[in-house]
Amino acid sequence: MIAVLKPGVSGEQSAKLIEWFEEQGVKVHVSNGEFQTVLGLIGDTSRIDAELVESLDIIESVKRISEPYKKANRKFHPEDTIVEAGGVKFGGGNFAIIAGPCSVETPEQITYVAQRVKESGAAMLRGGAFKPRTSPYDFQGLHEKGIELLLEAKRQTGLPIVTEIMNAEHLPLFEEVDLIQVGARNMQNFELLKALGKTNKPILLKRGLANTLKEFLMSAEYIMAGGNENVILCERGIRSFDPATRNVLDLASVPLLHEMTHLPIVVDPSHATGIARLVEPMSLAAVAGGADGLIIEVHNDPQHAWSDGAQSLTPDQFDVVSKKVRKIQAALA
Amino acid sequence: MIAVLKPGVSGEQSAKLIEWFEEQGVKVHVSNGEFQTVLGLIGDTSRIDAELVESLDIIESVKRISEPYKKANRKFHPEDTIVEAGGVKFGGGNFAIIAGPCSVETPEQITYVAQRVKESGAAMLRGGAFKPRTSPYDFQGLHEKGIELLLEAKRQTGLPIVTEIMNAEHLPLFEEVDLIQVGARNMQNFELLKALGKTNKPILLKRGLANTLKEFLMSAEYIMAGGNENVILCERGIRSFDPATRNVLDLASVPLLHEMTHLPIVVDPSHATGIARLVEPMSLAAVAGGADGLIIEVHNDPQHAWSDGAQSLTPDQFDVVSKKVRKIQAALA
Amino acid sequence: MIAVLKPGVSGEQSAKLIEWFEEQGVKVHVSNGEFQTVLGLIGDTSRIDAELVESLDIIESVKRISEPYKKANRKFHPEDTIVEAGGVKFGGGNFAIIAGPCSVETPEQITYVAQRVKESGAAMLRGGAFKPRTSPYDFQGLHEKGIELLLEAKRQTGLPIVTEIMNAEHLPLFEEVDLIQVGARNMQNFELLKALGKTNKPILLKRGLANTLKEFLMSAEYIMAGGNENVILCERGIRSFDPATRNVLDLASVPLLHEMTHLPIVVDPSHATGIARLVEPMSLAAVAGGADGLIIEVHNDPQHAWSDGAQSLTPDQFDVVSKKVRKIQAALA
Amino acid sequence: MIAVLKPGVSGEQSAKLIEWFEEQGVKVHVSNGEFQTVLGLIGDTSRIDAELVESLDIIESVKRISEPYKKANRKFHPEDTIVEAGGVKFGGGNFAIIAGPCSVETPEQITYVAQRVKESGAAMLRGGAFKPRTSPYDFQGLHEKGIELLLEAKRQTGLPIVTEIMNAEHLPLFEEVDLIQVGARNMQNFELLKALGKTNKPILLKRGLANTLKEFLMSAEYIMAGGNENVILCERGIRSFDPATRNVLDLASVPLLHEMTHLPIVVDPSHATGIARLVEPMSLAAVAGGADGLIIEVHNDPQHAWSDGAQSLTPDQFDVVSKKVRKIQAALA
Repeated sequence: MIAVLKPGVSGEQSAKLIEWFEEQGVKVHVSNGEFQTVLGLIGDTSRIDAELVESLDIIESVKRISEPYKKANRKFHPEDTIVEAGGVKFGGGNFAIIAGPCSVETPEQITYVAQRVKESGAAMLRGGAFKPRTSPYDFQGLHEKGIELLLEAKRQTGLPIVTEIMNAEHLPLFEEVDLIQVGARNMQNFELLKALGKTNKPILLKRGLANTLKEFLMSAEYIMAGGNENVILCERGIRSFDPATRNVLDLASVPLLHEMTHLPIVVDPSHATGIARLVEPMSLAAVAGGADGLIIEVHNDPQHAWSDGAQSLTPDQFDVVSKKVRKIQAALA
Repeated sequence: MIAVLKPGVSGEQSAKLIEWFEEQGVKVHVSNGEFQTVLGLIGDTSRIDAELVESLDIIESVKRISEPYKKANRKFHPEDTIVEAGGVKFGGGNFAIIAGPCSVETPEQITYVAQRVKESGAAMLRGGAFKPRTSPYDFQGLHEKGIELLLEAKRQTGLPIVTEIMNAEHLPLFEEVDLIQVGARNMQNFELLKALGKTNKPILLKRGLANTLKEFLMSAEYIMAGGNENVILCERGIRSFDPATRNVLDLASVPLLHEMTHLPIVVDPSHATGIARLVEPMSLAAVAGGADGLIIEVHNDPQHAWSDGAQSLTPDQFDVVSKKVRKIQAALA
Repeated sequence: MIAVLKPGVSGEQSAKLIEWFEEQGVKVHVSNGEFQTVLGLIGDTSRIDAELVESLDIIESVKRISEPYKKANRKFHPEDTIVEAGGVKFGGGNFAIIAGPCSVETPEQITYVAQRVKESGAAMLRGGAFKPRTSPYDFQGLHEKGIELLLEAKRQTGLPIVTEIMNAEHLPLFEEVDLIQVGARNMQNFELLKALGKTNKPILLKRGLANTLKEFLMSAEYIMAGGNENVILCERGIRSFDPATRNVLDLASVPLLHEMTHLPIVVDPSHATGIARLVEPMSLAAVAGGADGLIIEVHNDPQHAWSDGAQSLTPDQFDVVSKKVRKIQAALA
Repeated sequence: MIAVLKPGVSGEQSAKLIEWFEEQGVKVHVSNGEFQTVLGLIGDTSRIDAELVESLDIIESVKRISEPYKKANRKFHPEDTIVEAGGVKFGGGNFAIIAGPCSVETPEQITYVAQRVKESGAAMLRGGAFKPRTSPYDFQGLHEKGIELLLEAKRQTGLPIVTEIMNAEHLPLFEEVDLIQVGARNMQNFELLKALGKTNKPILLKRGLANTLKEFLMSAEYIMAGGNENVILCERGIRSFDPATRNVLDLASVPLLHEMTHLPIVVDPSHATGIARLVEPMSLAAVAGGADGLIIEVHNDPQHAWSDGAQSLTPDQFDVVSKKVRKIQAALA
C-alpha cells in the first residue's frame, strides 16, 4: 500500500502516522520528494482500511498494490484450474456447453429438451427449480419437485445437471446435483457463499448485475476460503443505460479474468442479452474471445415457457449454434 | 398491457394470438389502425410474460400499463403509511434520525456513541453486528455479541436499535431488535425477504446498488405479500462511472418514491457518498428533498473504527448536522 | 403512438385531448377498456412530443411505436448498404481491417506502420492528426502536417486513409481523406454532423460513451438527412462502473444494429478496452459476432507513442490478429 | 506519479526504466520494499502517459498524485471565484436563479415569461435559440431570430440573458448575450471550448451525460487555458440505468466540486429529472446542498411548449419554488 502525504505536512504529523502504521504491524518506507512525501507500506496490509487512511487530513491519496484475493489469484496459482462437474471438465483447454430451459416445468419438457440438447452436443443440462423472480407474484419454480424432474432427465439421458440454489437450507435437496449455480442477485449473499464453501460441490458463480471483476473474484474467494476451490465463473451481462438489451454482455471480462484468476470462465449469452436472436452471435463471440464454456437457454416451446421464453432458443436453433461453435473452436485450435 | 402487431400481420395470425391471450384469462380489445393493429389486454395480465410476447415474430412491441406492485402502490393506498419501530415513527409527516457506528466494537464504544447521538437528537441507534464485507478476510462483525452490546446500549440510553440481518436463520437473535435492516446486497435475496414477510418486525429495506425504483418496490412487495407491511425504504446511492464518490446518491428517488408508494423513505448519506465531509450537505439536501428520515454513521473515533471509518462523523460533527437539519425542517414547515 | 389515459378520466377531458391530437394532424383510434382507455395515434406522429403528452394530468403513459430514424432504418431499406471508401468496401458481406497509430507522429513512423499493416492484410490506414484530448495540456496532434504525412504514407503504400475531424472549418484539409471519422465525444455535435451531411465523403461515426443505439442511429440520421448516406457505424465501448477496462465493449450492439439499420458496423477493440492484450480476443469476438470490419491501433513502438501507447499493438502482434481473424471468417463462411 | 514494479524485476530492467523517466525530465526516487520496488516521479509528470507506463511488462501499477487541472484547481486558488454575468454574481456567497423556457418561441412568450420569473425573483432569463436535438427532424430553435427575441425581452425587463451556443462560427450573434451556455453534449467539443477560451464572455459549462468530475474540470480548464476564467459549472444529471427519471441528479457533486475547484456551481433540476413535479424538491435539495445558483425551466404554457414541455414549471409553480428556496437560504444563513 502506498500513501501520499499532502504538501506541507509537518515532520511531527508524518512521524505520528508512521508510528500508527507500525503499530498495525507493517513496515514503512519513506520517500521524500521535492513537493510531496510518499509512504510505502510493506508487509500484511490487508488489515489496514485504505478508505480510512484516505480520509485523514494529512493524506492526499492511497493505493493498494496487492489484490485482496489470494486463492483465486493467478499470481499464486499460475496453472489453469480444471473444474470437473459430473464428469464434465471446464478450464485448462476443456470447453463444454450447458443447455436447457430456464425453468423445469414438466417431466416431458425437461426430458425432451435434455435429449435434444444432448444430441446437439451439450455436455450438461440446466433447468431452474428455485427461481429468483423480481415479483413475488411470478412463478417461483417447482422447488423439490423440479430437482426430481432434473434427476429423472439425467437418468434418462446421462447428462449431468446444473441448477440454482437460493438458500443454504435447501442444500440437502442438492445432493445429487452436479453443479450448483449461484445467481447474479446472490453473488454477494455472503452467508450463502460461506455455506457453499463448506461443501465439496462444484459451484457456478454468476457475476452480479453491477459488480466489478474484483468483487466477482472476492465472492469466489468467499467460497474458496471455506475450502471449496471448485468454482466456475460466469459472465452474464451487466446493467447499463440502454434499454435495447436486458444487460450488456461484457465479453472483455473473459480474457481479463483469465489474467486475474486461474478459475474457468463460462458465458451466458441468453441472460446477458435477453433476446433469443442475439444468442447465436454472442455465443460465437464468447468462444472466439476465449470462454471455457457456454450456458444457453433452450426450450421445446419458447412461446409457452413459464419464464424467460423471450430469450430461449428452440432445440433446432441450439443445434445450429452448437455446430458453429465447433467451427470457431476448430478454426482457433 | 398493450401489444402492437407488426405491419402486414395476417388476420389469421392475429386471431391465433388473440385466442392465446384469451386462454390465459384476459380480454382483448382490437384497434385496427391505418398501418398497424394494437391489442389492448384487459383483466389480470400479471400472468402474461411481456418479454415473451415481445419476442413473437408478429409483435412489434409490448407495454405494461399497470405496475406489478400492489400492496406498496400508492394508487391502492393513497394515505401515507406511518411505520413505527420501538416507538419511533417514520412517514406521514414524522421524521427521525438514526445514528451510530458502522460496526459495534466494544461496550464502551457503542454506549458512548448512543449517549452522544441521543443528546444531539437521534431517535434510534444503528450499529452493525453482522457485516456484509466484500472480502472474506475483512472484519465480519461481532454477531450475537454485537446484538447484546446494542441491547445494553439501548437499556442505558433508551434508544431503540436498528441492525442488519444477513441470514433468516439468525432471526431468533433479532427478537429484541426494533428495526431490522436488509442491506443493499440482499435487496434481491428473495428467500430472506420472504422470511421477513412472515415476521411482524419493522424492516428497513435498502435499495440495491443497481436496482431500479420499480425493482426496489417489488422487493418491498415480497415482504408485504407475506403479511408484514411495516417496511421503510432507504435510498443509499447507486453505482455509477465516477470514482469520485463511492456511489451516486439518487435524491430524486425520494419525491418519486413518494408518488409511487405510501411507504416512508429515509436516506443514508454516509454509504451513498463514502466520504464524511459530504454527509452534512447531503443530509440537508435529503431533508429539503422530502426524506422521512436519515441514517447517519457516527463513530467516537473514526480513525480507529473497525470498518468504514472514512465515512463516519464524530459525535461533534453529527451534532452540527442534526441542528442544521432541524433548521431546514423549520424553514419548510 | 399509443397514449393510455388514467382510470376515471371523464369523456369531456378525453374528447378535448383527442381534439388536440387531431389538430396536430394525426388520427385517433379510441379503445375503451374495462378500466382504462387507450388512444392509438395514426399518421405522422413525429411532430408530437411524447414526453409532453406523458406529463399531462390525464395521461398514464405513452409509447412510440415507430422509430424516429427513417433513412438509417432497415425497415425502409431492407438490403445491406455497402459503403465504399477509397475503393475499400464495408457491409453487405464485405469486411475490411483499418489499422494504424493513434497519432501521426513522423513521416518514418506513419509510413513504416502503413507498410507493415498493409503486409498483414489491413485495407486502410488510420492515424490521428486532430486529437480530442481530455486535457488542454496533452498533445493535440500535428493537424495539417499530420494529414500531409498520412497522404504521403498513402502515396507510398497505396492504402487509403481514415482520420478524425473535430471542426467543420477544417473540412478543406480533408479533401483527399478517404474516410472521415467522427469521434465518440462528437457523436452529438450536431453542427458537425450537419456539415458532414452536406459533403459526399464517407463518414465513420463512432458511438458516444453513453449513447443508446437509438441515439447512435439518430446521429447517423443527421448526416443522412443532409444527403450523405455513406455512413459506417463504429462500436467502441461504453462507459460503465468497473475500472478494470477503459470502457465496456458492447458487442451485442453489432447484431442488434444489423437488425435496426442497413448501414455497415465496424468495431474498435483498442479504444473499447484500452489494453493492448485484450485487442486480439476482442477482435476475434467482434468478427464472430458479425462485425463488417475492425479498426485497430498499431504502433511501431508503443512504448514511445505520443498518445494511447497502452492500447496499441506492435506490427508483429497485429499480424497475428489479422491471421486469426481470417481463420474465424473462413470458419463461418 | 508513482510507479510500482512487479515482484522479481531485475536491477538492470529497473535501471533502464529509470533512465527513460529521467530522459523525459523527471527525477526518480527509488523505494525498495521487501517484496516490491516503488518509483516516485518528481517534477513535471504531465508529459508522461500513465496508461502507457502501466502497460509495460515490468510495471504492476501506476498512480498520478497530482491533478491535471491547474487553473480550475482550488489548491492553487483557495478563494472562491465570483463570476459576474450581466451584473449578476455567482459564487463566493452569491446565489442567483436563472429561469425561462427551454426554447424561445414568440416575442409574447419570452417577454411574458421573463416578466413573470423576474417578479418571482429570477436574476437571469434563459431561453434556447440554438437547440441540440437528438433527432434532425425535431425543432432546432429560432437561431438568430431567437437571440433577437431574448434581447428584446432583456430590454423590456432588464433581465440579463443566458443562451446556448453550438458552433463557434455563431459567436458574432452572441455579442450581447450575458452568459453563454455550453450544453452537456458539447462538454468535450474541445474546438468549441478553445474558441470560447479566447473570448471574455462568462461561460455556463454543463456537465456531460457520462463525464466524471475530473473530466468536467478538464473541460473548464480548456476554456481557462485560453485566458477566459469566467466559468460557471452546471450539474444537470448523469446517465444511469433507471428509466424512472431522464437522468440521475448527482447532488454530491456540488460539495465535492466546491472542494476541487474555486469556480461557482449551479444546478439544473429540470434537465436532470425531466419531470416538472420533481423540480421543486430537487431545487430545494440543491440549495441545501450548497449550490451557488439554479437554472430552471419555466414556460407560460408547458402543454404547448415546442420542446421539453414535460419538465417546465408554470410561472405560478416557479413562484412557489423561488419562495421556498429563499426560506432554505435564510435557514442556513
